[in-house]
Amino acid sequence: MALEDIKQKIEAANAEAVRRINSADPVLMDIAPAGEVIPELKERMILHSGPPVDWPRMCGAQRGSMIGAVLYEGWAKTLDEAVRLLEGGTIQFEPNHHHQAVGPMAGTISPSMPVWVVENRTFGNRAFCRQVESSQQFGDYREGALQGLRLWRDVWAPALRKGIGQMKGLELKPIIAKALQMGDELHNRPVAASSLFANALAAPMIEAGVAKADLLHTLRYTAGNEFLFLGLSMASGKASADPAAGLEYSTVVTTMARNGTEFGIRISGLGQEWFTAPSPRVNGLFLPGYGEQDAGLDMGDSAITETVGWGGFVLGGATGILSLVGGKAEEALAYSREMRQITVTTSPNYRIPVLNFEGAPVGIDIRKVVQTGIVPIIDTAIAHKNPGYSIIGAGLVRAPLECFKKALVAFGRKYGLGRAN
Amino acid sequence: MALEDIKQKIEAANAEAVRRINSADPVLMDIAPAGEVIPELKERMILHSGPPVDWPRMCGAQRGSMIGAVLYEGWAKTLDEAVRLLEGGTIQFEPNHHHQAVGPMAGTISPSMPVWVVENRTFGNRAFCRQVESSQQFGDYREGALQGLRLWRDVWAPALRKGIGQMKGLELKPIIAKALQMGDELHNRPVAASSLFANALAAPMIEAGVAKADLLHTLRYTAGNEFLFLGLSMASGKASADPAAGLEYSTVVTTMARNGTEFGIRISGLGQEWFTAPSPRVNGLFLPGYGEQDAGLDMGDSAITETVGWGGFVLGGATGILSLVGGKAEEALAYSREMRQITVTTSPNYRIPVLNFEGAPVGIDIRKVVQTGIVPIIDTAIAHKNPGYSIIGAGLVRAPLECFKKALVAFGRKYGLGRAN
Repeated sequence: MALEDIKQKIEAANAEAVRRINSADPVLMDIAPAGEVIPELKERMILHSGPPVDWPRMCGAQRGSMIGAVLYEGWAKTLDEAVRLLEGGTIQFEPNHHHQAVGPMAGTISPSMPVWVVENRTFGNRAFCRQVESSQQFGDYREGALQGLRLWRDVWAPALRKGIGQMKGLELKPIIAKALQMGDELHNRPVAASSLFANALAAPMIEAGVAKADLLHTLRYTAGNEFLFLGLSMASGKASADPAAGLEYSTVVTTMARNGTEFGIRISGLGQEWFTAPSPRVNGLFLPGYGEQDAGLDMGDSAITETVGWGGFVLGGATGILSLVGGKAEEALAYSREMRQITVTTSPNYRIPVLNFEGAPVGIDIRKVVQTGIVPIIDTAIAHKNPGYSIIGAGLVRAPLECFKKALVAFGRKYGLGRAN
Repeated sequence: MALEDIKQKIEAANAEAVRRINSADPVLMDIAPAGEVIPELKERMILHSGPPVDWPRMCGAQRGSMIGAVLYEGWAKTLDEAVRLLEGGTIQFEPNHHHQAVGPMAGTISPSMPVWVVENRTFGNRAFCRQVESSQQFGDYREGALQGLRLWRDVWAPALRKGIGQMKGLELKPIIAKALQMGDELHNRPVAASSLFANALAAPMIEAGVAKADLLHTLRYTAGNEFLFLGLSMASGKASADPAAGLEYSTVVTTMARNGTEFGIRISGLGQEWFTAPSPRVNGLFLPGYGEQDAGLDMGDSAITETVGWGGFVLGGATGILSLVGGKAEEALAYSREMRQITVTTSPNYRIPVLNFEGAPVGIDIRKVVQTGIVPIIDTAIAHKNPGYSIIGAGLVRAPLECFKKALVAFGRKYGLGRAN
């Protein structure tokens, strides 16, 4: 095929990819135990963030989070027992992304954890995300961290589930659109979306007859939880990105995810293959008592938000976040403009007021990334390099260029190009 | 006294004025019938926005709102009867600002209307604001408009009152500070503050034992009401500005208010005197079916928000509002920078992320206004020029320079200056 023909096929495929992302309609349908809803999540299996990884290569925080999950599931009673079990090879590890799922930071999803169930009404596919908290997902396996998981399982998730059932599904697109005009970028700063979501659930939980003590406990959890919506923006991102996968000739990125050891991407026209590079160091601010020397490397499936155009890509509209991650307002605005250079289009739904209501940049094109050398900017949190800690900081990170170069080489090979761009 | 000495006295007095505004600590204490809490609000008296005005000079929208209040209070049964009563001189009209109160648009407060009761904990003074809605306060006296007032009186305000009682007061400063980092300017756009406030009240209303039907009705009102917090930001503004009034030698503006006929300001060092000019025309966008030819002139006490540094003064941080009022993001950012030129200081509490967390401009100095010719920029809504209509639009307006010139002349006269600046 002539190069010009191939180029046309790429453009057409990419147009279809972003059409699919932009026409997504994420609706929260349920909160259910992961084992009941996530396809092929078996007993004695734990899902994790990022590309595939085995125990020996797993970073400290993800190991800690695995230990936490094993203790939470009751598969082991002590730390030593948990570690032996995980080292022993009887627990199966698989990436969330192989199961229509995403998870924050270490991303561990074990069978009894209730997950958000988001359906993309336009395409009928579903996506799942676990609870977002600040401890176990960062590698903390202490009693306090596990207690948060149990409250989610036993009180908060069941109460919210009743409310969601009462509503027969809650459309998330209006909340996301509105929150992006309220200083959220829906990744490190989902403050407005969390508040709007908490309000939307209050009356339905009452109508559904949630008992008063559980209701009050849950309302205190939702009303005070600025990160409540992150699990929903991640599930919405995953539900929006998945239909764009598997389009022959498309150079659009459909996955960016990190396991704390490797950063991996997947490309629409290149099937399920991961293109990886070492996880980068995060540039950010630390909580008191922690510093660079404690930091693990970039981790989490939460970059699904950037994959669909939120997070770092709309940082210019969410400058409130700078108190958390550092930096100047001008830099934040510049990031958003810069991301326009590596994306196929903008969102017709999700618009940023301070950029004169320009749409969020959508559809990262690996060709543009390699040509310009501009790599995606990602908001993220920082975990400790060793197991056993809660969150230690937050910041910004750049995706490694190497992933995109590898993907472009593979693209050239698959589609018979001497040079792929 | 030498001019230099007077100048020093002015600087010291202005420093004290902004110190008082900036150290305000507004706390919501109650929602109570106006007649029970507002000093000297007598039976057969209706308070209104702006400087003093009598029936013959009253604008159409404020007349309509008066008619609505008379019908709501049951002082008349029909439109004709209400008009006769109002024309007859037996109803007393006084400005809200003479009673520690503020009201949106026409601003009518009659004795049985429940008002927000906000206490400035630093100084012990209280301020009051009525319910914000989109009909009766704009001059609509039809049944639907009155029904909104009755629901407020009979269902929503009593339920919220129980919740506030349960909390023994709700601090508003944290909500205001947070909302200003979430794209609010707290005047035309109090969306985030409304959502945060609704969340804060849900659990306390349940704890206080509000009956299920009233609870659900109220939660639907609060969760869906983007202007819910405006009454609270207005009462907070009034509670914050009042302690800055009455400081000898201060040239700081402590009141900006409009009755739809006149725009009036009051100055700290000039006691209770109003300095007025004709109300200006609002530059904005209209609801379908309405246009310039239908518009009344600028109206409402809501400019109390700009008086303490919110509203138009922080428009750069609230660009989401531009879809409502028109204009470009760059213009909004420029307004905020411009307001720095006519104010004494910035707020240490209320900071704007997109301006690199610079504080809101606080303390309008009439000298600076007259010297620069830059007048305060105010966000506002648009009422019809005739009685009987709900909201017809929203936009921006500039305070008339004439008020500031008159005030400066009076200042010069009082303090014995040949020229006051």
